[in-house]
Amino acid sequence: MRICISQLNPTIGAIQENVKKIIREIEKVKKAHEKNPVELIIFPEMAISGYSPDDLLLQSGFLEAVHKGLEEIIKSCSSIACIVGLPRRDLEHKDKPLCNSAAVIVNGKLVGYQDKALLPTYDVFDERRYFQPAISEKVWHIADARVGLTICEDIWAFSGAPRQERYAHDPLEVFEKKRIDLLINISASPYSIEKIELRNEVAKKASQKLSCPVILCNQVGAQDGIIYDGTSIVVSEKRGLLVKMASFQEESQIFDTKDLEPRTMVSVEPAAELFSALTLGVKDYFAKQGFTKALVGLSGGVDSALVAVIASVALGKKNVLGVLLPSRFTSSESTEDALYVASNLGINTVEIPIEKAYKTYLELLAPVFDDKPIDVTEENLQARIRATLLMAIANKEGYLLLNTSNKSELACGYSTLYGDAAGAIAVIGDLLKRQVYEVANWVMKTYGWITPRILEKAPSAELRLNHKDSDSLPEYGILDPIIEEYVVNLKSAESIAEKVGCPLTLVYEVISKIHQNEYKRRQCPFSLRVSEKAFSAGRRVPIVHRFLPTTS
Amino acid sequence: MRICISQLNPTIGAIQENVKKIIREIEKVKKAHEKNPVELIIFPEMAISGYSPDDLLLQSGFLEAVHKGLEEIIKSCSSIACIVGLPRRDLEHKDKPLCNSAAVIVNGKLVGYQDKALLPTYDVFDERRYFQPAISEKVWHIADARVGLTICEDIWAFSGAPRQERYAHDPLEVFEKKRIDLLINISASPYSIEKIELRNEVAKKASQKLSCPVILCNQVGAQDGIIYDGTSIVVSEKRGLLVKMASFQEESQIFDTKDLEPRTMVSVEPAAELFSALTLGVKDYFAKQGFTKALVGLSGGVDSALVAVIASVALGKKNVLGVLLPSRFTSSESTEDALYVASNLGINTVEIPIEKAYKTYLELLAPVFDDKPIDVTEENLQARIRATLLMAIANKEGYLLLNTSNKSELACGYSTLYGDAAGAIAVIGDLLKRQVYEVANWVMKTYGWITPRILEKAPSAELRLNHKDSDSLPEYGILDPIIEEYVVNLKSAESIAEKVGCPLTLVYEVISKIHQNEYKRRQCPFSLRVSEKAFSAGRRVPIVHRFLPTTS
Repeated sequence: MRICISQLNPTIGAIQENVKKIIREIEKVKKAHEKNPVELIIFPEMAISGYSPDDLLLQSGFLEAVHKGLEEIIKSCSSIACIVGLPRRDLEHKDKPLCNSAAVIVNGKLVGYQDKALLPTYDVFDERRYFQPAISEKVWHIADARVGLTICEDIWAFSGAPRQERYAHDPLEVFEKKRIDLLINISASPYSIEKIELRNEVAKKASQKLSCPVILCNQVGAQDGIIYDGTSIVVSEKRGLLVKMASFQEESQIFDTKDLEPRTMVSVEPAAELFSALTLGVKDYFAKQGFTKALVGLSGGVDSALVAVIASVALGKKNVLGVLLPSRFTSSESTEDALYVASNLGINTVEIPIEKAYKTYLELLAPVFDDKPIDVTEENLQARIRATLLMAIANKEGYLLLNTSNKSELACGYSTLYGDAAGAIAVIGDLLKRQVYEVANWVMKTYGWITPRILEKAPSAELRLNHKDSDSLPEYGILDPIIEEYVVNLKSAESIAEKVGCPLTLVYEVISKIHQNEYKRRQCPFSLRVSEKAFSAGRRVPIVHRFLPTTS
Repeated sequence: MRICISQLNPTIGAIQENVKKIIREIEKVKKAHEKNPVELIIFPEMAISGYSPDDLLLQSGFLEAVHKGLEEIIKSCSSIACIVGLPRRDLEHKDKPLCNSAAVIVNGKLVGYQDKALLPTYDVFDERRYFQPAISEKVWHIADARVGLTICEDIWAFSGAPRQERYAHDPLEVFEKKRIDLLINISASPYSIEKIELRNEVAKKASQKLSCPVILCNQVGAQDGIIYDGTSIVVSEKRGLLVKMASFQEESQIFDTKDLEPRTMVSVEPAAELFSALTLGVKDYFAKQGFTKALVGLSGGVDSALVAVIASVALGKKNVLGVLLPSRFTSSESTEDALYVASNLGINTVEIPIEKAYKTYLELLAPVFDDKPIDVTEENLQARIRATLLMAIANKEGYLLLNTSNKSELACGYSTLYGDAAGAIAVIGDLLKRQVYEVANWVMKTYGWITPRILEKAPSAELRLNHKDSDSLPEYGILDPIIEEYVVNLKSAESIAEKVGCPLTLVYEVISKIHQNEYKRRQCPFSLRVSEKAFSAGRRVPIVHRFLPTTS
């Protein structure tokens, strides 16, 4: 059977647009292969609606529009079978009246739906909020093959993947008994570091269990902070990975079940993959929101340098403006470094010294402050003056402001609310400082846009004289692994102290900071998620709580 | 049987503190009723952990601490039976390894758990994210009575309450067959307008179905934006509401199953109830976060006046500072009205004209703005100068800034991000403008703190000459019902136009505004939830989407 795997980039709720894209793809495939027809075309999970519409699913008219879209698609499938994901109403059962389904279209007719059996409800997923699980796994007859159909999580639950949730049911057990020739999995499987490799392993396990090839068709594109990488694959139980499609871009490939020869695959180094993921995140947010131009405050540090690089690649250098906002505490090296990056990238810059505004505020506040000593207030003031200037330029010129906070800073609240915490997206908000350096290093090595000095100098917010990040924070070499172990791996304080090799009191200090700054993170822009646990999307903790872990 | 109903106010994660409070209550009841002992004491859902800990449940050490707390409580129950809510680990089943449970302690021993059967996963609830449902409903023998035990949602599903989710199972059906003498429901049931009455009706229905009295013990207190009112009740199938406990404060009452005489109850008018709810919301946030002092920007308008009133009642007038930040567009009436409210309340004020800062920014920006015409940028600038000044005072003096946006403004994005959108809590962020007036009117009538002129003048942000809200927004009399119908009742554009009696194009315009401003609301502080659908807690929609409802 000749099968087209189409990893598209839908936009949530742009149902007519998504449907047009799907139909265009179907027509293209039919036309390009008239002599040797493609028999089946596969689209990702919820390709009609985009994943995930969340509470829009409950809004009047949403499901009707999806259903209408499906009818349009069916009309275009006269000579090709089609599998396409969508949310659909199902009133047969007594609980939630919706399913996350795959429509199966054969001979120009809708022959049925396969509903998703395992509904992930953890981390960034909330499927139990909307859907009821499938009550059966069916076998579909497509071009003389017995085809099993699964949706994303359905193949993950018993794969042994780390952090996997438990389920009482395994769809693959059913397919193993029913004996099938091909398993198809349509997905909206979010990107994170090492996820692409993990997904291959999960598909391989399924393939081995069922003794048949597995096709995994994954959505591409960014939706708010969640990045879907695509990277659709075909694996066979004997030959392993046969096809690995593009990451971070739309693509279609034809796979013939008679040809089980592995295709050539390119491998990408981790920092390059991360860079591509973040670039897609920025690009898609702007494109889907209808913006073209971005603004970055350039401090001369590594964070804003990397954000400027990503923005330039994502949006084009003409669409990025670097703004320098020096204060009395800004070193000449910082200004040089900022200008050097900007000139390497070929982006425009403007420079506005903030001293006058700073002085004006101090004058205005003097009667209230009443000779109180200088403290963090004056540091925050500088950060807020900068945000006000950046937002004024953004408002006047139609730019979006990019936030340059990293995950280490977000964890500890090392930023000023309504100051450097401002912006539309926290581009590197899910990168620990260590990872910022890794990607920046890769950029320097590959493009030369970032200078060695930026990578070598001690991190500083330059909000007072001789200011260093390490005045307020543990060294990043200690801080980063503590954050990783607590936030991502949910470890106890004791085991973190042991693993990181630092005093238990320091671990408690960092955990307390993480807890205390939830209020701040809630008002920050979303981060582009690249880890298994980002602050903005998949971690849900109260602002007000007094938990401090004491036992292991 | 003599039963003590204890509606406590726990703090999430303050497990030892919550346990101490529970034990103190048990000891008090034992001591006060030595001659005629109380046989059973009841605490709310998840009283040990606070509701809801969300992802803290997954953090190492959390459940261990809860379990340790339970053991402490058991020790204090030598001569009294006790029912207390907690999350607990249950590895017997194959899916999620946690249950939302009630521990049943009789004769100083833990005799078992009743797990929650119906796990709400909609609006502000996410229980399927953490818990597996009960697999059975047991009957407990306490002081010779056959007692059925349910947790919150368990009695709601088949009550016919509006917006109720569907479930495949009804715990009350089981209890009906098993015949019980008393049904106990422990709850963490959030407040919203009309919810108290609705809760009574639901309990009455259960009582009638089971032909026995129902005791509902509800948590009190605010957790982030969610307000729990307490208002624990006892209803009997024949006499209806017998006991109605205090709303918005901790209380314990003894109920004797032999005495089915209804007690005297006070009724409160809706605006007063709303005022008490918001006051508790502010009070609890400050108390649980360890703050005492609040800052309000006083514009002379009704929103900031009402927020100042609520803050003064919640925190004490000495702990509230009103800040006036007049600009060239501020009328003398506005300043008078602001000062009048402050003086009525007896709160301190400071006044800082923002003109100098405004001029400084315009000078700094002139080279970039390049003679471009004045637009919304300059309005936002004024709002951001105010936020910067307010935050500077807050930082220097240890105040928290209160946000004064209302729901009508939040819906339409009628606020400036990092400007008047700033603050720790949006005190009236879930009140439509109409409701702001209702509560403000009640305040004027009851306390006289707000003047008629504040209630009578046309709403204005005073960011340009002769500025009126109605320049940018539909009249609130039209806008409010559109928001209500779309956001709370999930109605289609057509049915809204018909119900509100306005053009369909206007409805689309408002819906588009609501959609477009999700990005802004995500960076706003949480609102205190008083409606069935608040923006910040229970409504989850993507920032990026292009859905516009077109069919009914």
